[in-house]
Parts: sequence; C-alpha cells; structure tokens
Amino acid sequence: MSLRDEALELHRQHEGKLAVQPKVEVAGAHDLSLAYSPGVAEPCKEIHLDEAKAYDYTFKGNTVGVVTNGTAVLGLGNIGAAAALPVMEGKAVLFKAFAGVDAFPICLNTEDPEEVIRTVKLLEPQFGGINLEDIAAPACFEIEERLKRETNIPVFHDDQHGTAIVTLAGLLNALKVVGKNMHDIRVVANGAGAAGIATVKLLLSAGVRDVIMCDTKGAIYEGRVEGMNGVKQLIARNTNREHKRGSLAEVIEGADVFVGVSVAGALTPAMIQSMNADAIIFAMANPDPEIHPEEALAVGARVVGTGRSDYPNQINNVLAFPGIFRGALDTHATSITEDMKVAAAEAIASLVSDHELRPDYIIPRPFDPRVAPAVAAAVAKAAMEGGVARRQVNPQQIAERTRTMARIR
Amino acid sequence: MSLRDEALELHRQHEGKLAVQPKVEVAGAHDLSLAYSPGVAEPCKEIHLDEAKAYDYTFKGNTVGVVTNGTAVLGLGNIGAAAALPVMEGKAVLFKAFAGVDAFPICLNTEDPEEVIRTVKLLEPQFGGINLEDIAAPACFEIEERLKRETNIPVFHDDQHGTAIVTLAGLLNALKVVGKNMHDIRVVANGAGAAGIATVKLLLSAGVRDVIMCDTKGAIYEGRVEGMNGVKQLIARNTNREHKRGSLAEVIEGADVFVGVSVAGALTPAMIQSMNADAIIFAMANPDPEIHPEEALAVGARVVGTGRSDYPNQINNVLAFPGIFRGALDTHATSITEDMKVAAAEAIASLVSDHELRPDYIIPRPFDPRVAPAVAAAVAKAAMEGGVARRQVNPQQIAERTRTMARIR
Repeated sequence: MSLRDEALELHRQHEGKLAVQPKVEVAGAHDLSLAYSPGVAEPCKEIHLDEAKAYDYTFKGNTVGVVTNGTAVLGLGNIGAAAALPVMEGKAVLFKAFAGVDAFPICLNTEDPEEVIRTVKLLEPQFGGINLEDIAAPACFEIEERLKRETNIPVFHDDQHGTAIVTLAGLLNALKVVGKNMHDIRVVANGAGAAGIATVKLLLSAGVRDVIMCDTKGAIYEGRVEGMNGVKQLIARNTNREHKRGSLAEVIEGADVFVGVSVAGALTPAMIQSMNADAIIFAMANPDPEIHPEEALAVGARVVGTGRSDYPNQINNVLAFPGIFRGALDTHATSITEDMKVAAAEAIASLVSDHELRPDYIIPRPFDPRVAPAVAAAVAKAAMEGGVARRQVNPQQIAERTRTMARIR
Repeated sequence: MSLRDEALELHRQHEGKLAVQPKVEVAGAHDLSLAYSPGVAEPCKEIHLDEAKAYDYTFKGNTVGVVTNGTAVLGLGNIGAAAALPVMEGKAVLFKAFAGVDAFPICLNTEDPEEVIRTVKLLEPQFGGINLEDIAAPACFEIEERLKRETNIPVFHDDQHGTAIVTLAGLLNALKVVGKNMHDIRVVANGAGAAGIATVKLLLSAGVRDVIMCDTKGAIYEGRVEGMNGVKQLIARNTNREHKRGSLAEVIEGADVFVGVSVAGALTPAMIQSMNADAIIFAMANPDPEIHPEEALAVGARVVGTGRSDYPNQINNVLAFPGIFRGALDTHATSITEDMKVAAAEAIASLVSDHELRPDYIIPRPFDPRVAPAVAAAVAKAAMEGGVARRQVNPQQIAERTRTMARIR
C-alpha cells in the first residue's frame, strides 16, 4: 500500500486520531454525585474564590490548546481550519506520546489575526498553555507577540521556535565536531519565514554574533527597501553588521554555518565551496532539502542536518515541544522565555556524549526516550530561575514524571 | 468524609476529570509518517477538496464542544469561565460514559453573547455538535437561536432542552398512570428561566393545549407589562388562552399538572388541594424541590417527580443528552429539531413497560443502560425523517453502536 493509501486508511479507520478519556469512573449514583452535581460545586466554589486553584481541581495544568487557523498547513498553504484538523490531532498525539501532555485542537475558521488573538484570550481560563501551529507569517508574529503580552500562560509558536531550538541544539554539537566557537562563527540563514526568523533570533540569544539573513531578494540589511516588513526590519537592525548586500551566493562566502528554511535547491555545491573549511549545513526545507547531504559532503561540508528521517541528523521539532510544554506546565509558567528555549536546546545537545559525537550524529534521534524528560527538567529549571514559574519543583522529579507519563520508551 | 471533602479530593487526585487519548500509536518513524508528517497531508488534502470528509478523517463526527461562559453555573450563579470548568469536565465525562461521545469543554471568559456566538462559529469546522451549558437567561436564548440559524451543526442548550425532554418523558407515563390525555390537560409551569421556557415550548410541540406559565410576578399573559422579555412575550402569545391573571396560587386551581423549575417551597399543599384530582407534580428545583414528595402525596398528588436521586422519579438530564447527541452525530445531523426532542422523550418513556408502570416509577433510572441506545436510535430516525440527517443509518445499528461505546452496563 502507498503511504497515501496507508495514511488515509489510518485516519478513516479510527475517524480521527484523538478521543477524550475520563479520568474518573461514573458507574453509579455516588460517583455521579462527586464528579457531577451536587459535589462538583465544591471545586467550582474553590476556583471562584482563587482562580489559581484551577491548576489543582481541573485539567488546566496538563492541557494545551493547539491553535491554528489553517493558513499555512505543512507545505500545503492556506487550506483552512477544517482541513488543518488532521495535523492538529497529530500534534496532540505527539504531545501525549512524548510527554504525557493532554493537547486539544482549536481550529479557527478565520484569517483575521485579531479573531485568533481574541479567541485564545477567551479560552485562557481552561488551558495551561497554547501551542500556535501552522499560522502564516507575518500574522503569526503578531498573534504570538500579542498573546505573550496579553495572557498569563505560555504561548509558543512551534513552527518558529521548535525549529529554532532543535537547530541550536544541533549547532551546539556541530561546533564541537569542527572545533569552532559560537562567538566566532558567521552564520548565513536563508528563508525569512516564521522558522527562519525565530532561528536567527535564538542564535543571537545563544551568543552568535555574526549572522546574515537572506530572503528571496538576497541579504537583509539595514536600509533595504524592497520586500521588507516589521520583523525583517528588526532582523536588519540586529544582524549583518557589515551591511552586506547581494544574493545568497554572494554573502555566503566565508561563512561557517548555513541555516536553510527555504526551498529545495537553494544551496549549491559551489556556494558550499565558497564557505570556510568544515562548513556546517542545516538544510531543512521540506520535503526536499536545500541541498542533499551527499552532495554537500562531497564538496567539503563537515556536518549536514536536514528535516528528513532518512538522513542522519534529523532536525525534528518533536525533540523540543513535548518537553518544553511539560516543563512549562509543571512549573505553572506564565511564559516561555528565551532562556527556557536555550536551556531546551542545551538539554537536547547534552544527550549526545562526547564519545558518541560524530559528524553524522550531532543530535538525538526523535524517538530517544531520554529527550523529553531532559528537556522538561531543563525548561522547568530555567522557568524557576527566570522568575516565570508560579510553582517551585524539583527538576529531577519533573524528568522522572515525564518518563512515567510518556509512551515512548 | 463529607461529600464536600470527597468531591474536592476526587478532583485534586486526578487534577481534573478529563484526559486526551490518542487512538493511534506512534511508537516509531513509520507510525509518525502516517499520523503526522508527511502522511497526514493526505487527509488534509481530501478535506480541503470536500469539507464533508472531515467526518471520515477527523474526530469531528464523534466530538462535541461543551460551551459555557460560566454565567449560570449550577445554582452558583455567575462564577465565570475558570470556575465553570469542573462542571464542563463532568458533563464531558457523562457524554463519554453514557454514549461514547467525545466531549471537550470550551469555557469562554466573556459575558458578551456575541463573543460566545462568534467563537462557536469559528470552531464549527472541528465539532460535530455544540452543547451549550450553564449560560444565563435570556442571553442563552439568543445564543442558541443565532447558532441554530448560523451554523450547520446541532446546537443544543441542555439546561433548556434536557430538562424539557425528560419532563415530557415523565409526563407521557404519568398521564398513563392517571388515565388522562395530553390534549385535555391543563399544565401550570412555575419559573420562566431557561428550563421552564423550553419545557413549556416542548409540551406545546407534544400536543398540550392548555398551559399557564408563571414567574415571580404570577401568570404570564398577553398584554402583561411588568417583568416581560422577548421570550416571555412569545410564551404569552402561545399559552394562557383565557388570559388568566394572578399568582401561582390563583391560577393553579383546576390544573392537572404542575411543572416547577423555580425555588424550594414555591408549591404549597393548599395549592395541590386546589388542583384537579390525580394531580401530577414535577417539582424540579435543585437541590430542594418546590414541595417534598411526601407532602405532595399526603394532600392527594398522584405522581411526583423531582430532580433528586433520593426520591423516586428523578428527572435527570443524563437520560437525554448523551443519546440525543449520539443520534445526531451518527446521522451527521445539521440540527436538533423539535421532532427529535419529542422522539427522545417518547423513547425514554417507552422503556417503562405498562406492567412496570407505577406512580413511583414513571421514568427509567439514570443508570439504566437501555436509555442512551434507545434515545440515540429514536433521534437518528427522527433526524432522517425530518430531513436534517446528512447520512442515512439503520437505527437498530445506532442502538447497538451506542451500547458498545457506552461504559454504563
């Protein structure tokens, strides 16, 4: 059976991928009087007096809304809320399988960013966190920024930050392989969509000083007029300190690292040959990378990562988001800070020991069961240190709890 | 342990009552490629071409949103969205236990009916139906009416129609006990909130011709000025054909049936003594009924029902809503019609056989496992006959499926 037929069959067989499961039994009148009327009035009254008690008496503390408006689904584009639902169900399956997080799709039939913002704010009482998913740029930036300011729960756009965190994790280890330092490298990033922008921002947070970002019009620099927007202006101010202009081919000369979240074929062997020795290539366009690993390695690249499961060094978001939300939920965090993201990346990278580290093994595999517990513990610790935790926890206990709750063994 | 402590302990122990459960395994890369990227793109594309395919490939066809804004929660009043969540989780537990329906809370932090309406419309792509819950009158009427007109999925305000349907079921059998006919009786209803209004409307749909409705200001009649609203105007036009005025005590004289959804003590023994022989009393105020059954029976009432589990003839919504949504979902119904509600009431009533029927057993008990299957089948049949079904099914198979999916045995 083709993958297409097999995927359709799987979805049809179960009529979707998610069910709602009671955690309590109602086998008789007494059960009913506790889980429902009249006993249920008691937790209601407690929460009415102190809304923080929602974490004690309801599902809020373990539940994440997976919010989309279907405007940028996978590589399919703007297919709408109904057609986005299989992806959101799938995301929720991963949340549960990898970190025991209960996630529920919220697919909104609107292209108006204000309506997405408003709806999430209305739903804030019941969710411990919000995972934004497959919302087109640039609306996704405004939606996330506004929700971060206007709610008291973590809001995380996985298409941006998931990729950024896992790329940073890969880079931390790739730099060890080549013996270079975060502070000294030049990174050229291609593709100024949600993931590209977030990756550049996170690399800056992590200590990279020299970044040039390119879009389809070439290098982004301060003063460029064509094809700019608010986010690119911000990028222009914080990167490309030499104000280089020109195409990717022109500005990549002398770079140490290529980060591609663009399109197949965007990176040529000649471009790699113009980079510094021991080039590190993250070619993450899906399903076909900017350059295929064998081509990149043939012209001198030392480390190559892609988004694909059939090559080594897969940069897969699933390494990050389950553990990140686990750690954020368990600390009742009010937000996910840059420090929490860096901590997640470092935790992922740390799972590849020095003696295992090789050019073709810089990052744990997606089903490595150590990842989500390590990320959850690191994120919880960073949340407490950063002052966004409303509950103090023991990171080692968070790791253990994550191991217990996850289905990945 | 007190009920209060036991209820708080139950809720704290599990941190709420609902989990999200994957229906598919993701134990390895191949699973991931089917349930998530890249395979998940296939059902997305199918639904993008034909939105009705959401019933085939997603959870939509078995999933109901339990929507509230927390403005009228149990008897607690306007306690807000966060404090309403335990009730909505409980409702979802009942949906699953009684009829295998996956229900998920949608608790909205707003008192503006327009925001509730707008949010439900935004969520329409992902839900097979909407159960409105604990929304204050009169906003609940407008919200339900607007959503019925402006969406293509069943929208059902359980506080209104659940009570109405189960009361009608009880009345059908109570009339058999006393040997009276729906067309000939006079009903006096007390309490013009959501449940009272809906019950009167449904009794009219079921063939009752003579109804007088009272609120705190006495009988509602055409031309009354004080304390009226749009819904009461409609009631005034369709009831009380003799334009009676006066208090409940005055207009109840000569009535055959009392329907109370008001407050404890609203019905006195003297009022019952002024009713016709073989009076039928539904005293459904919670937690204390309008009159206690022993008092009512002592002064000549023949049949008494209440909302309480510790008296016979409990009028409990759980007899209706799980099976109603089961039948509506399984037919991909676009709405829940008056005929579907009457069919549900008749199905409930029919489960008390003529030889079992007694003044203290006019309605099945809440945990009778025959109820939801019978209601689901009857509602599915009525949906098909009424032209609101988008899928034709065999009602007997629906009953069997409901039995299989329910946890109540």
